[in-house]
Amino acid sequence: MSLIFKQLFENESCTYTYILAESETREAAIIDAVDIMMERDTALLKELNLDLKFIIETHIHADHITSACPLKKYYPKAKIVMGMENVDAESCSDIMVNEGHVLPIGNYEIKAIETPGHTLGCMSYLIDNKLFTGDSLFIRSTGRCDFQGGSAKTLYKSIHKLFKLPDSTEVYPAHDYNGFSVSTIGEEKKFNSMIQETFDQKTFIKNVNSLKLDPPKKIKASIPANQSCGLISAQILKSPYK
Amino acid sequence: MSLIFKQLFENESCTYTYILAESETREAAIIDAVDIMMERDTALLKELNLDLKFIIETHIHADHITSACPLKKYYPKAKIVMGMENVDAESCSDIMVNEGHVLPIGNYEIKAIETPGHTLGCMSYLIDNKLFTGDSLFIRSTGRCDFQGGSAKTLYKSIHKLFKLPDSTEVYPAHDYNGFSVSTIGEEKKFNSMIQETFDQKTFIKNVNSLKLDPPKKIKASIPANQSCGLISAQILKSPYK
Repeated sequence: MSLIFKQLFENESCTYTYILAESETREAAIIDAVDIMMERDTALLKELNLDLKFIIETHIHADHITSACPLKKYYPKAKIVMGMENVDAESCSDIMVNEGHVLPIGNYEIKAIETPGHTLGCMSYLIDNKLFTGDSLFIRSTGRCDFQGGSAKTLYKSIHKLFKLPDSTEVYPAHDYNGFSVSTIGEEKKFNSMIQETFDQKTFIKNVNSLKLDPPKKIKASIPANQSCGLISAQILKSPYK
Repeated sequence: MSLIFKQLFENESCTYTYILAESETREAAIIDAVDIMMERDTALLKELNLDLKFIIETHIHADHITSACPLKKYYPKAKIVMGMENVDAESCSDIMVNEGHVLPIGNYEIKAIETPGHTLGCMSYLIDNKLFTGDSLFIRSTGRCDFQGGSAKTLYKSIHKLFKLPDSTEVYPAHDYNGFSVSTIGEEKKFNSMIQETFDQKTFIKNVNSLKLDPPKKIKASIPANQSCGLISAQILKSPYK
């Protein structure tokens, strides 16, 4: 038995999608799937003969639209998984998770970790030694905190919770804008530009407040679309997986 | 002892750069480093406390410029490694390799495999179960064969040589244009759109000839620059690694 693992990139919003599966049962999960990449993702799931069990969102994205609902057309038994605090997406979600909730794929377990701060309901997920941090912890950076219930104070606590994981834990974020694909908790504790193990909360809040970022280009379309788990995209997308 | 492995992406030419290192000796190699990403790459090498021993090129690239020579300013003992057939780059290369040449980093060995066809001197490199295929074998596709001594007939033979490796061998190409990061020999034998285990040479040649691709945008600047191992970029680039 081994873990099948695929990291996939969407170039426009620099989003990473992840496919995780157990080699024997072929049970699989997808994390942060993007609407415009659904053909690629369903083709890959089909080629690898995977049975999609969980469609996991780390949070309600503001920069792209999820393919969660469209994916359910091809995998009707798959469950959409969302952090408990995302009440606006409750009606389209199948499983609302909070701290410690376990999602089994074969003999592996995906464990939910609450990491609010970028948004109110932002979650991380741990499987084996792989940590999917959504928009909380990036490679050498962190998520912004200026909309959707974001709070630098809260994000500080969330990231310090992640810093308690073993240094060798591999960090896979929802985005990267510099071409990095993976880091470790040990690396981020030492080299993150926004938050390190020794930075106090005040310093981190100052760093986050110093970010002068434009709103995400697609925020007006993305947030309502993602609050419906991407349902509004379902009609216009095609998939090779009939 | 373990293998440190980083996959890095350059967005403009969709190029993957790879850093490989042995955890105890910290000896490292970089494969297909890109000039405009040198600040990122040298910063990462420094953070990880790695000692760059080999600067490896899979081939003379036509779509971007290598940072090989500029990197030597920061790692003067590092050796530029190039396939034997790249005679135009012989004067700037330190080690010209052919089939079976072994490059040791700590207790690991990087083995050179001749895989001409995309260009005359295109090489692949194998370390542990990781295969770096340059522009010979892509994920679900292959390199083009219409310049720099390219030959579909030759590439067919090269890829079939790679197909003899164990199915579980991980495939890391020099480019991906669809957001894939890794494949396996087993997957490519079954799912590659251009060449599969059962495709005959004629079918592959037809597939390659059907590619209607514009010349790479930067071919006129890139080829001569890469024939000098990126020397002409050395004056204009900065690195944080003083």
